[in-house]
Amino acid sequence: MLDTSCIRAAMALSLLLFASVAAAARPAPAASEPTDEQTAAQLRDEALAGENLAWDWVSELTTRFGPRPAGSDNEHRAAEWAAERLKALGFANVHIESFPITAWVRGVESAQIVAPVPQPLVVAALGESPPTPPTGLEGEVVIFPTLADLKAAPAGSLDGKIAFVAARMVRMQDGAGYGAAVEARVDGPAEAAKRGAIAFVLRSVGTDSNRIAHTGTTAYVDGRVPVPAFALAAPDADQIERLAALGGKVRIHLYSSASYVPDAHSQNVIADVPGRVHPEQVVLLGAHLDSWDQGTGAVDDGTGTAIVTAAAKLILDLPQRGPRRTVRVVLFGSEEVAQPVAPFGAFGGHAYADSHKAELAHHVLAAESDFGTDRVYSLELPAAVVKSEFATTAMRVLQPIGVLAAAEPARQSGTDVRPTNEAGVPPFALLQDGTHYFDVHHTADDTLDKVDREQLDQNVAAWAALVWLAADSDVDFRGQEAPH
Amino acid sequence: MLDTSCIRAAMALSLLLFASVAAAARPAPAASEPTDEQTAAQLRDEALAGENLAWDWVSELTTRFGPRPAGSDNEHRAAEWAAERLKALGFANVHIESFPITAWVRGVESAQIVAPVPQPLVVAALGESPPTPPTGLEGEVVIFPTLADLKAAPAGSLDGKIAFVAARMVRMQDGAGYGAAVEARVDGPAEAAKRGAIAFVLRSVGTDSNRIAHTGTTAYVDGRVPVPAFALAAPDADQIERLAALGGKVRIHLYSSASYVPDAHSQNVIADVPGRVHPEQVVLLGAHLDSWDQGTGAVDDGTGTAIVTAAAKLILDLPQRGPRRTVRVVLFGSEEVAQPVAPFGAFGGHAYADSHKAELAHHVLAAESDFGTDRVYSLELPAAVVKSEFATTAMRVLQPIGVLAAAEPARQSGTDVRPTNEAGVPPFALLQDGTHYFDVHHTADDTLDKVDREQLDQNVAAWAALVWLAADSDVDFRGQEAPH
Repeated sequence: MLDTSCIRAAMALSLLLFASVAAAARPAPAASEPTDEQTAAQLRDEALAGENLAWDWVSELTTRFGPRPAGSDNEHRAAEWAAERLKALGFANVHIESFPITAWVRGVESAQIVAPVPQPLVVAALGESPPTPPTGLEGEVVIFPTLADLKAAPAGSLDGKIAFVAARMVRMQDGAGYGAAVEARVDGPAEAAKRGAIAFVLRSVGTDSNRIAHTGTTAYVDGRVPVPAFALAAPDADQIERLAALGGKVRIHLYSSASYVPDAHSQNVIADVPGRVHPEQVVLLGAHLDSWDQGTGAVDDGTGTAIVTAAAKLILDLPQRGPRRTVRVVLFGSEEVAQPVAPFGAFGGHAYADSHKAELAHHVLAAESDFGTDRVYSLELPAAVVKSEFATTAMRVLQPIGVLAAAEPARQSGTDVRPTNEAGVPPFALLQDGTHYFDVHHTADDTLDKVDREQLDQNVAAWAALVWLAADSDVDFRGQEAPH
Repeated sequence: MLDTSCIRAAMALSLLLFASVAAAARPAPAASEPTDEQTAAQLRDEALAGENLAWDWVSELTTRFGPRPAGSDNEHRAAEWAAERLKALGFANVHIESFPITAWVRGVESAQIVAPVPQPLVVAALGESPPTPPTGLEGEVVIFPTLADLKAAPAGSLDGKIAFVAARMVRMQDGAGYGAAVEARVDGPAEAAKRGAIAFVLRSVGTDSNRIAHTGTTAYVDGRVPVPAFALAAPDADQIERLAALGGKVRIHLYSSASYVPDAHSQNVIADVPGRVHPEQVVLLGAHLDSWDQGTGAVDDGTGTAIVTAAAKLILDLPQRGPRRTVRVVLFGSEEVAQPVAPFGAFGGHAYADSHKAELAHHVLAAESDFGTDRVYSLELPAAVVKSEFATTAMRVLQPIGVLAAAEPARQSGTDVRPTNEAGVPPFALLQDGTHYFDVHHTADDTLDKVDREQLDQNVAAWAALVWLAADSDVDFRGQEAPH
């Protein structure tokens, strides 16, 4: 609560400071029609005042449908609800695009220390990881401080044992600690199996210290995850390390009845604010409707779907003329789950890029909101426009709400839009403060109470203003990189 | 983390401020033998410097034995370990006093919203509550804002339904929010059953917002808890309330295979620092070794056992003469679990007061540390000495570490010593900051990582200093209340 108060106080202060500077620098409004910059500021201020649908959207989505794992009935229901809601809100071209997946379904799972003294452990099976035998698995734990240490173990050295990578994720504002830590989750099971291990466990890839484990996908090798794999809650990882330090072998028992549904499907939900002049030119705003299966997917990624939908709705409802280009909301499915054909994530993203391949040449930008609900603090633009008048205008609108220009151009935006970006559509990124994101990411604790409404509104403000500026322009975001 | 830093900074500041005042006020040391006040200050400063065994004690206890529910093998093992350790530390009269109990054993448990849309719920069966039928129980949820609202419902109005008391616990420094909220947990099941309900659920009695439920005992009525009873994690209670507000009935399914072990036993562990002059006069320091079954009982009450043991050990190891009176450590068993003969808690406490009845006339004080590990901020003394020279001396020693004299005399200290206090032995209370205690109280999240070592040391400092002053004195703490 303290943290939130601090951020609110800082935001209020920066608003005061910057608002006065911005007011002095801004050109006088035209008598007849508002300028693009004025419309962007108007959208921003509407959003910031709470006059947007983000809170109601994320509240209703997460309350009605709870967890929405890829391929589940609840994911399908949420997509149908979203499509109905988008139609009712007045969006055009609202439809659902289905695609096949193999769904992974968590079963019953449990873990215990069995020696030296029995104790329960809190674990979560990693996504896509196979079940244990019906009586579970038991083995001695071999502790590796990092994935590199596991990789250095000789073949056969883990025969009949359980490999445990104990590395701690580093808390960082930009989330870079995740990239450094997640490799152990992705590659650990296969590396352990190669050396004879019967199972793999790791300290949760997360920054909290609660008895709640963080799930997430692992890599397929030859079409499967080779051994049952689990994340331990941070205090449980501590406990095993301390127990080993007291001397003697630590043995644990693991059980999971996870299963696969090979003929499942997921879907993307699409909705447009049609362009007034160039309807074929698309500014794509993405987020994902699916979630992990233990929380209700509030910050991952209910708020993302709420932010981009609310931003597009503000543009749709402008009393003045609409944007020159089309603003397209895509609520992706099956973002969280790796598939054999896509070793790590982005399945809804692939489906979109494949089925819209012919149109991508006219997509002018594609970006995603998928990093929780904390405030946007930095804007990354495509290299071509970093030094442009577009960037200058954008920063005049965004700086008053605490967003600074990033030092680097945008290289990526989110998992779902990556295939579209890789097809040549430039990304932008409204970078969010990720200091607390990994406290609840991929856990049962990802629930609505973790969403700060004021910060949610600031996100909508940033998206609405920036997307308006891009969609009402004729800027070529693919152009050559601007000279330095 | 921020909170802890703030408290540390505040403590450091108060140490600086008060140390200079105290130094000016303190009498010059005698050349030969230290005064009682000097010895108390010496004990305080040793503890504060981390030269005490509290951290190692709580770390080893919680790591080796994990959860220690009353009557379990792990509770017995922990008691044997504690007795061995106390002997090795040099305490006298170390022994275990066993007593019979009926143990309650959590089984497998689960809960789901089944309508309008299936969703998992995080629950914990309340201690002593009976199992559901093997296929579980399903019913419509009827929401009551408070226990009083449930009590106002007519007989028969809950036939076949599940009563849900949604009251929120208030966060308060002195923990008074718990007293106000816990009534629903204790009396709710019986009140629900009286009106025909098939089960009872309540919002966890706690102050966090994690997907972790808070267990705790419920009252027996006619020798049993009348219906299966569960605590919902706070976000799950929110979810049911929001779902009901969206319209339509909410139905949930509950399952628990909890069971009872009627021929179990628990035990108290006793250890003395023998009095030099009046060995029969006892200053009793209590804490409890048992814990709830989902966490490792770090703050409830591993740290309490560590604080009183470490304080007594500092007195035992004084290089100068020992105390005039006996300092007795009692590590109680089965504090957490209500029994038919004791409708609410304190079973180890009853066993001690019963089996030591003849000695209680010579017990001069009995107090307990059972409120986590946050810093002591206030001292309550028996009414008889509130205005005495003893109190003045005690405050000169304690004020430098941030402890103020309480406005009221001590009326109670802890659950385990209550039967001893009720037999006429005066309590004192070193009141701890309980602002965060109920974030993890009675949950799986009560683990060692929640213990702040610096605050733990401050607790040991306060206990060692005060207990020394009481044990080396001839003060009659039962005396008439001092005139105001």
